[in-house]
Parts: sequence; structure tokens; C-alpha cells
Amino acid sequence: MRAEIISIGDELLLGQTVNTNAAWMGRALHEAGISLQQVITITDNREHILSALKECTERADVVLVTGGLGPTRDDITKETLCSFFNTKLVRNEDVLAAIREYFSEKGIPVLPANEEQADLPEKADILHNPRGTAMGMWFEEYNKVVVSMPGVPHEMEGMMREHVLPRLRKRFGNGGFYYEVVQTIGVGESRIAHSIKDWEDRIRAEGLSLAYLPTSGMVRLRVSGPIEMKDNVSREAARLEEILGDIVFARGDKGIAEVLGAMLRERKMTLSVAESCTGGYLSEMITAIPGSSDYFLGGVVSYHRSLKSDVLGVDDAVIDSETAVCEKVAVQMAEGVRKLTGADVALSTTGIAGPDGGTAENPVGTVWIGISSASGSRAERFTFGRNRLRNIRVASLYALNMLRKHMVTGS
Amino acid sequence: MRAEIISIGDELLLGQTVNTNAAWMGRALHEAGISLQQVITITDNREHILSALKECTERADVVLVTGGLGPTRDDITKETLCSFFNTKLVRNEDVLAAIREYFSEKGIPVLPANEEQADLPEKADILHNPRGTAMGMWFEEYNKVVVSMPGVPHEMEGMMREHVLPRLRKRFGNGGFYYEVVQTIGVGESRIAHSIKDWEDRIRAEGLSLAYLPTSGMVRLRVSGPIEMKDNVSREAARLEEILGDIVFARGDKGIAEVLGAMLRERKMTLSVAESCTGGYLSEMITAIPGSSDYFLGGVVSYHRSLKSDVLGVDDAVIDSETAVCEKVAVQMAEGVRKLTGADVALSTTGIAGPDGGTAENPVGTVWIGISSASGSRAERFTFGRNRLRNIRVASLYALNMLRKHMVTGS
Repeated sequence: MRAEIISIGDELLLGQTVNTNAAWMGRALHEAGISLQQVITITDNREHILSALKECTERADVVLVTGGLGPTRDDITKETLCSFFNTKLVRNEDVLAAIREYFSEKGIPVLPANEEQADLPEKADILHNPRGTAMGMWFEEYNKVVVSMPGVPHEMEGMMREHVLPRLRKRFGNGGFYYEVVQTIGVGESRIAHSIKDWEDRIRAEGLSLAYLPTSGMVRLRVSGPIEMKDNVSREAARLEEILGDIVFARGDKGIAEVLGAMLRERKMTLSVAESCTGGYLSEMITAIPGSSDYFLGGVVSYHRSLKSDVLGVDDAVIDSETAVCEKVAVQMAEGVRKLTGADVALSTTGIAGPDGGTAENPVGTVWIGISSASGSRAERFTFGRNRLRNIRVASLYALNMLRKHMVTGS
Repeated sequence: MRAEIISIGDELLLGQTVNTNAAWMGRALHEAGISLQQVITITDNREHILSALKECTERADVVLVTGGLGPTRDDITKETLCSFFNTKLVRNEDVLAAIREYFSEKGIPVLPANEEQADLPEKADILHNPRGTAMGMWFEEYNKVVVSMPGVPHEMEGMMREHVLPRLRKRFGNGGFYYEVVQTIGVGESRIAHSIKDWEDRIRAEGLSLAYLPTSGMVRLRVSGPIEMKDNVSREAARLEEILGDIVFARGDKGIAEVLGAMLRERKMTLSVAESCTGGYLSEMITAIPGSSDYFLGGVVSYHRSLKSDVLGVDDAVIDSETAVCEKVAVQMAEGVRKLTGADVALSTTGIAGPDGGTAENPVGTVWIGISSASGSRAERFTFGRNRLRNIRVASLYALNMLRKHMVTGS
């Protein structure tokens, strides 16, 4: 069974919006055992939408369409679907009532453009949208399924979860593919490939596959095979984890902040952070995890020098003689925030994110990461690249990884 | 002139990686006056790559391909391009030397798989990649251009900036399309459409277009037209800004943190923040902007109650009687961090991001945002939705917007 996605929206092609919907849907389909083969991103143009619908329905069994269902005039998906399926719009009174209620709950009057969202294709099954006023539409013809959904991410996600995935699963059953992911941090793709060459040769000969998925600072490795070889996949993923040792931070899709959060919760330990160059990103990674208030006490973003000394107690003389980017400042920041918050363990970052501020000794991308716990304090120096946002992200990741290693090895 | 993108990678279809490259390239092409018409995302599969190349080169003048150039065996783009263009791989000695130097600078030995990255298609112009070991390839046949680049974002971006965009601009010149963007915050799409209906009718009749680009908490409006109507587009974008009034925070593509940063810098004012429910995201938005250390002093992420009272001086009795999610706590947090840091102005957030922790009085999504300055302190209550990450993002955006309005109106 083959699925394709059509993402509609000028904003996607102009790069004003990143197509996160396609990734979310790809993952959800994969988990439902449905294989996503292609994503086509096109403009809000009638001819373009019609030709994409034609192409995709020729190749695929299921075509999921997002975007172009808003109440404004640049949204033409609904009318175009009517042409494609040779049907017409009829007013749906249930939907009209739901739209009116949606606005009345928010205390805003309903506009004619909102009421027109109750005009829906006669041939489609309507998928209710409790998060907005653009309904979903499920078409079925010649044994092909075409589903149209709004492009607003949380509306699409709710509709997929509540309507589309259950119906697809019921109709097509689970697919024939199984995978497990082993996630690593701190070592490059080719070095990993080199160290697992013999193992990789063997699993490929046995009919399994391996994919390398590098992102900033991390490489995820996906071992996969046909569903009948599920046990082999699990066994080889475990073997891979063993071979790679402590660069592995997780089996499965959990991010490092979630993995670390589970470790802290289990050990009933609390964490705080003192951030300079990461500017809040490290805290944000930690607090993005639901329930993080169980172990995260909080932290200080000591961007200006005065916060380092006044709030965290960093020694002014050290900053004067060695600048704020040095081992001692990183250590004192971690110790300072640990003392201030009473946390069991604390992390700190100080460095030069760029694009300006580099020196010969400390070029852009230099970051000291500190850690402090009952067993002592220390800091490590890293040299990342020249891209500000990447430096902020990778430094935050590496800080979490330093804590993970500390919790595993105690050092 | 028509451009298309082929994004190659199983990880994109499995949803393990979001296709940010396509958005970045779309924006860069648009700025270069090149119209991106379609993005096709496909698996690392030879037949799939060949058929996408065939389709795209039939329709488009320029096809940009990313992904599948790594040193590992799942990367098959280079070999597939050789088949498509009927050419073979030859070892490039200059590239080999560059790869060896790249590794020697990092102090890591070169592996055979890395050296094989110097084997490149005979027919292609090689685009040097100083950020990695996968080179770019520029093919030209039958008046069509096909460029293959690595999928690692910062490598692709560097290659686009340094090689691909200059060559495309030189070859195809600037396109025929002009647009301006007006960005709004805090009001929904249909309400905006209603309030600008007459204006929108008029500009459409005059041959201009309008697109609504909603994202969480914001709606961007893009006014566009043929390049000959550049002045009309500018005039109407200005008129739109006037009609919409203070919900507009920017003309152009600058985000609200950048707009606000420029205002603070101009007035030589400093800012600090005290975050509870936004957990560092507000600081991160501010510090993502290069040069933000000119006006941002830092802040406190007071996740745990003890940091609110001990570090920020929030009155324990208030938390006991009214919980931490109330007007007084938001005001005292903003005042507390302003005093602690000596900033001219301070923001605070306290609320329930979810998914748990909601009560009848304060359901999930309730957030108080506080502001404190020399002219006084106050807080405002907002009710967002049920999605944790969306609540964190929108609350941070609204906090920045509260400061923006304060700086414009002084209230």
C-alpha cells in the first residue's frame, strides 16, 4: 500500500513556512504501518493542484492533502477538489452549527466567510475539526482514498489522530516494515560507519538495512527489515548499541532531554542550569518535556557579566584576567547556580556563539560547558562552528550529554 | 524560469527529519528572483531518484537536488546521477587533497570511505564544500541545470550562497515578481480578512495578490504583483499597515524579537526576563538574534516555586493564597528580575503550559504575562490552547508583543 502527500501553499515554496506537517504525517503513517513514498509541495494554483492530484492518484492508494482550506480567498483547495471529483458544494447544517458554536465560545461574532466554511463537497465524508473551522474531507473513488485537511499543524494533527489514521488502519491494516533507532551524540557519520563496518556487512547480508541520519551534533542509526524479521531487527539494534558504547544515548525516538529527564526522575535528583552563550536554549530543551517540573528547578541566563558575578557569584577578578569564556567561569557558574537553587546537579555554558566576538584564543564557536554535583565540579572545552544558531543548539545538546555521561559513569 | 527541488532521504519521509532545507532554498531562490514551483521529497531509492530527475527536468529549467551524498552506503545519489547523465566517476585529486586537509585540521585520520568522496562524475562541475567532505555537482545538458548538494543544512546553505545562487543569478537574471510582507500578531485570519475586505477587493482588481500566512499566534500578509508594479505593491503594503493599526509588528521578514531588539538598541534600553511556564523559550527567542547582548542582560527561569521567592522576591503568602498563576505573581516576578538585574524594562510569564496541572479556575493554557518599567508594572491574562509546545511559543511571542506595544504607546 502506497501513500503520498500533497502539501499546498505558496508560503511553503517561498520558504516563509517550513513543512513540518509532512514530517509529522510521515512519522504517523510509518507508525501505522503505511509507507509514505513521496511528498509533493505545490503552490495555491488550481492547475497545479489538479495535476498533482492526477499524478498522485495514478501512483498511490492514499493521497493526503493539506492546506488551502482557510476562510480567505487565496484558499482554493475545496473548489478544486470539487472539480477533480466532479461534485459540488452543499451547505452542511451540522457543520454550520458547529462553526457558530466555535465562535460563540470564543465570544467573537461569526463572519460570512466563516459560515461559507460549512459549504462542503457533496461526495465527501466530512471529518469534524474541533480545533478550527476548516473541516476535513474524505473522498473515495476507484478504490483510491483522497483526504483533504487544514494546513494549521495542530488542526491537522488532531484530525489525523481522531479520524484519518483509525480509518486508514481499518481499511489497509498494518504494513510490512519494522525498524528500531539507535541515537548517538558526539561522533561523526563516517567514523561510526568505520567502527561498525563488519557488523553492517553482516546484517545487510542477512537482509536487514541500515540508514545513517545525521543532524547537528548527533547521528541516528535506523536498523530496519521486513516485519517477519522483527526479532532480528531488535537483536541487531541491541548489538549495535553494544558496539558503539557510550556515544549511544537512546534506543528509540526519545530525545536526549527526555532520556535525561527519566534518569533524573528515577533517581529523584534535581537539576538547575546557568546559561551564557546558549541564552535560554538549554532550559527550553529541558522544559519542552511534559512533567519536567518534577526535576528541573530552573536557572539563570547570565548574559551580561553583572549577572554572572552578582547572581551566580562568579569571581570578577577571574573574568578580568581570563575573560568570561574560560574553565574557571564555567565551573563557578555551575557551582553558583547549584548553590542558588539547591539543586543536586547543575550545568553551565559560556562561550562565543557568534557571528561576532571571536578572538585568536577563543574563536567563534568556542564553548566551555561546566558541571557541578556533590562529587565535585569540572568543565570541558568544545570548538563548534561559525553558525550562531547551530552553536547554541549543539552546545545545549552537548551540555545535556555531559550530564548524561556523568549520571552513567559518575564522573 | 522555473525551478524545482528534489529532496532525497528516507528520514524525510519517515518524519525523522523535517525538511528545513526546502524552506531555506525556497526563500533564497525567491530573493534571487527565481520562482520555485515544486518540491518533491523521495526515498533513497535508485528508481525513485531516476524518475524524479526525469519528471523534474522535463518541466523545470533548474533542478536542485539535496541529500544522499554522505560517505555511507545508503547514500546513492552520486552513482544515480552518473546513470542519469550517462557519465562515470573519476577521482578528483584537488578534492582528495582538500578532504585530507579537512581531516588533518580536525586531527582525525582519513578513512577510505572519506577518500571515495573524491570520486566525482566526469561531466559535472565540482562545487567545493569547505564545511564538509561531500562536494556539490553542477550538471548542464540540453539547456537544463541540475545541481546536487549535500543534505546537511549548513553545508547546503554555504554551497548555495557561495556557488549556486551567484551562478543561477548570472545565468537567468532576476525574475519578474515582487512582494512585501506585513506581519501581525494577536488577531485571527478571518477577522483580518473581514476588516480589509474593501481594500483587498480593490488591490485584486488592480492586478495585485494577497496571501494570508497564519502561524501560531501570528498572521503574515503577503502583498505581491509583477515586478513592473513594485511601487504599487509598496504603496499598498503601507496602506495595509495603516488599516490594520497596532496589530502590525513589522513590514518585511524580520521576526518580532529582531524588531524589538532594534527598538531597544535605538533607545539604549536594557531588558531582562523572569520565566516560569515558558521555561527559557522567551530568553532563547531574544538571544537567537546576533548582537542581542547589547540590550539583553539575562534572566531567571524560576520553574520551581523556591526560585520565585528566593531569587525574585515573590511574596510566599501570595503563592499560598492565590497559587503561582495569578496577576500578583506575574507582576512581582517582573519587578523582581528588573531589580535583580538593573534592567530598564522586564517581562515575566507564569502559567500552565500543560498537558497536566490545569484547574477549574486556571485551565491548561492559562498564562499571565507581566511587564515592569520605570513607569510602573502590570500583568495581563491570556488563555491559549491545550498543546504544551504551542502554549510555550505563543506565550513567549505575546510577551514580546506586550513589550513592543509598551514601547510604542508607553503603556
